[in-house]
Amino acid sequence: MNGADRLISTLTKNGVQVCFANPGTSEMHFVAALDRSPDLKCVLGLFEGVVTGAADGYARMTGVPAATLLHLGPGLANGMSNLHNALRARSPIVNIIGDHATYHRQYDAPLTSDIEGAARPFSSWVRASPTADAIATDAAAAITAARTAPGGVASLILPADTSWSEPIADAPLPDAVLTRPQPVDDAKVRAVAEILRTGEPTGLIVSTDATRDTDTLDTAGRIAAATGARVLMLNNTAVTKRGAGRVPVERIPYPVPAAVEFLKDFKNLILVGTKPPVSFFAYPDKPSEEFAPGTRIQELATDRTDARAALEALAGELGASSYLPIRAELDVPEMPTGSIDGDKLADFLAVRIPDNGIVVDESITTGRSFYARTATARPHDYLVGTGGSIGYAMANSIGAATACPDREVITLESDGSGLYMPQALWTQARENLNITTLVFSNRKYQILRNEMQGVQADFGGPRAESLMDLSNPQIDWVQLAGAMGVPGHRATTMEELNAAFDGAGQVTGPTLIEVSL
Amino acid sequence: MNGADRLISTLTKNGVQVCFANPGTSEMHFVAALDRSPDLKCVLGLFEGVVTGAADGYARMTGVPAATLLHLGPGLANGMSNLHNALRARSPIVNIIGDHATYHRQYDAPLTSDIEGAARPFSSWVRASPTADAIATDAAAAITAARTAPGGVASLILPADTSWSEPIADAPLPDAVLTRPQPVDDAKVRAVAEILRTGEPTGLIVSTDATRDTDTLDTAGRIAAATGARVLMLNNTAVTKRGAGRVPVERIPYPVPAAVEFLKDFKNLILVGTKPPVSFFAYPDKPSEEFAPGTRIQELATDRTDARAALEALAGELGASSYLPIRAELDVPEMPTGSIDGDKLADFLAVRIPDNGIVVDESITTGRSFYARTATARPHDYLVGTGGSIGYAMANSIGAATACPDREVITLESDGSGLYMPQALWTQARENLNITTLVFSNRKYQILRNEMQGVQADFGGPRAESLMDLSNPQIDWVQLAGAMGVPGHRATTMEELNAAFDGAGQVTGPTLIEVSL
Repeated sequence: MNGADRLISTLTKNGVQVCFANPGTSEMHFVAALDRSPDLKCVLGLFEGVVTGAADGYARMTGVPAATLLHLGPGLANGMSNLHNALRARSPIVNIIGDHATYHRQYDAPLTSDIEGAARPFSSWVRASPTADAIATDAAAAITAARTAPGGVASLILPADTSWSEPIADAPLPDAVLTRPQPVDDAKVRAVAEILRTGEPTGLIVSTDATRDTDTLDTAGRIAAATGARVLMLNNTAVTKRGAGRVPVERIPYPVPAAVEFLKDFKNLILVGTKPPVSFFAYPDKPSEEFAPGTRIQELATDRTDARAALEALAGELGASSYLPIRAELDVPEMPTGSIDGDKLADFLAVRIPDNGIVVDESITTGRSFYARTATARPHDYLVGTGGSIGYAMANSIGAATACPDREVITLESDGSGLYMPQALWTQARENLNITTLVFSNRKYQILRNEMQGVQADFGGPRAESLMDLSNPQIDWVQLAGAMGVPGHRATTMEELNAAFDGAGQVTGPTLIEVSL
Repeated sequence: MNGADRLISTLTKNGVQVCFANPGTSEMHFVAALDRSPDLKCVLGLFEGVVTGAADGYARMTGVPAATLLHLGPGLANGMSNLHNALRARSPIVNIIGDHATYHRQYDAPLTSDIEGAARPFSSWVRASPTADAIATDAAAAITAARTAPGGVASLILPADTSWSEPIADAPLPDAVLTRPQPVDDAKVRAVAEILRTGEPTGLIVSTDATRDTDTLDTAGRIAAATGARVLMLNNTAVTKRGAGRVPVERIPYPVPAAVEFLKDFKNLILVGTKPPVSFFAYPDKPSEEFAPGTRIQELATDRTDARAALEALAGELGASSYLPIRAELDVPEMPTGSIDGDKLADFLAVRIPDNGIVVDESITTGRSFYARTATARPHDYLVGTGGSIGYAMANSIGAATACPDREVITLESDGSGLYMPQALWTQARENLNITTLVFSNRKYQILRNEMQGVQADFGGPRAESLMDLSNPQIDWVQLAGAMGVPGHRATTMEELNAAFDGAGQVTGPTLIEVSL
């Protein structure tokens, strides 16, 4: 049993079941060990961003970490942007980065770089494991770090000789330590209850700890029913269980003027494991803080607190535990017909999201009304961008579909975003994942056209316009999908989209539909 | 004239003519300023690795920096792997990373990360420019840093308000300081001359400073002619001018056993701006140092020394200045026919590389004989992987073709590597660049199959095999090229390849040929 075997055994012993991988030479002993480790499923990505994005999606759906396997500093670098998103999603990930053998680093061979330094800005924990004897303990520590609230990216650097060496001692495999979230702060509970008893307009801003757990959502809904408070979430909340039968959560809009308008009448905002709502970007004439000046901000729970317990304590304090939460009722619109626009696409989704479906939404400008209009669709999970790094959705969907093979995944992708990591389609095909991808093809970076007006840049010059234009040449998404082994279709009307979606449901494995706008 | 205007004006005043860009919201004032700055050409990439890889290719061909434009930490992250290659290529790059407005960082908005910390491992210089008054000075310092020997990646972080603010003072635009390389060390020149006078088998390992300058190569060739020394280079030397009329440089092989065999009879190795040859990776049973134990290693020049002056001083010391260097003579083989293999492809290249062509070689296992067999082709520039991060070649070619619009670029791409950044094809089409890409499609990570045997991992299990297999599904490169707007062809015989290559020469703009192996 070499170091790689001990690493994999420690992972599987502690509940890590999947490794998303793009290995290289220094990881070959890990790869070889897979054939001695049937309990660790290994999924290949052709690019490291696919690997880390898939691990994020897996973590979002399961709450437990997948492992990654990346190749030295550049492999880590290619995976970093989706690690950034994962950190913001609070996704637990055991991020394994192969390195040169320890004795080889002194030679500064071409692939050498400062992996620890590179990992730190995109990790919540970093450790290089120096020996085959240390690796099991280090792996357990990585799992502990990844799973400690609020969830994090634990980067474990694995030198090649740590993998290939036999340990000196035959020590038992260690357990990861599952730490409890921090306890509820009773003083905060009382302070929040006092605010809610005033009857002033109050928003309860909950985190993904609440939005992905229907019991916790119910508790928030009881508090809302008892006090008149509204249940809100930040725009970039990782996963929301919603639709018919669930307590609806109002999402603070992305555009600053809309967010300011949305928040302006709240006298109090209660933070349940979140931060106050701030604008995604700074704009010369707009505030960074989206809430009205003078709004009282009161924390109920930090991101390390048990959000469920905090809300239950608050419900108890308020006598709200016996209230019935307001839940969404199923209400789907007519299927829209004719030419395609964003609102019709939203209605289409409201009709077509299946019971217990998973929606991964990176539709950016096309999808501005998707969230609101699908509030009363069949019950589903809704995943969105968390860290603002685009191109994650098709990779996230791999992880979600791997975690939930019996559920249908719908990926809502903008063409600009989808072009960051189109290799994700190949893994979807290879793993025969149940994913239908809609690519909204407007052939431009429409978000940037909006933002350029938002930042009051002197807009409209042809060279600036050209940098937001994806029409020369046009991307052919049907060919792109076909190149990656995914059947592709093109829809130019709602009827064609509906028919293509029907077709996708009749095959196993992934389908891509280019929605021409 | 806001900060963005002053930045761009400082760039263009100091010789930066091209910016490869993938901008976002925080860069919108830079983008808007382009319409007031006709001297800076701006080239859009759909992924940041394309941007940084193009900047590397541009720098390799010109020796002067291009600028990049990246979007915060994740945008930088996506560009890092090719910055790693650029650092190893000694390519000067002014790497501009937009950031939040300075006052907005305190809010930890979703896209916030430690950009300085992230940039450091992949940069030779990092600075965040705090104000519109500082930006011109900081940009000049970045250019200075990028151009200081041996050439480097200068990462300049550009907060949004630095861009959009008007400076307080109307200071003149500063000049970058062009620093001289370090002077020749006469003691080292004498020490090397003494070694060469022994007549012992000696290798002169030159860097890209020599291999991309025919005069410097000639000087090395004179020394070789006068002393019997052989002119060598490391396997990952960025650019080599070679073919008919040039002094040939022997390339130390990549596989460790071949490198050890190649180097075993040298008694002395002279380093001219390089490091001693070491293996790319460590292997359990192979040395990290590829030269024989006891080999004398003597430095003539560091990577900061003027390599040309050092070689000229050495030639003078040896009385070699009047010798005629041995130059390659044109000798091209017959055009191979029939089924395709690596050696026939090498001969094909030897026939088809055009006069003054540029070859970017990321052919990995398919191309093991390409370099040797093209030594007597028509004169050309040969670019190879420098930092071991794969997927750079199609992006590098963008930069090379942008720098040299009148020359033909041939990209030799392996299918595994090409799948890291296939978006490069779109920029090739958009810019109508004169690039012909051959993709060697063997539908596997053949390099890893070799390496797994090399590292003595227990080879051959089906799960390990599966992680090196790209055949399920097969990638259709013709469709992939078509999706990106590049005409694609498939060749299954040498005749088909030759015909497709003819066709590529008859159109303007890029072509891709999938070479089925």
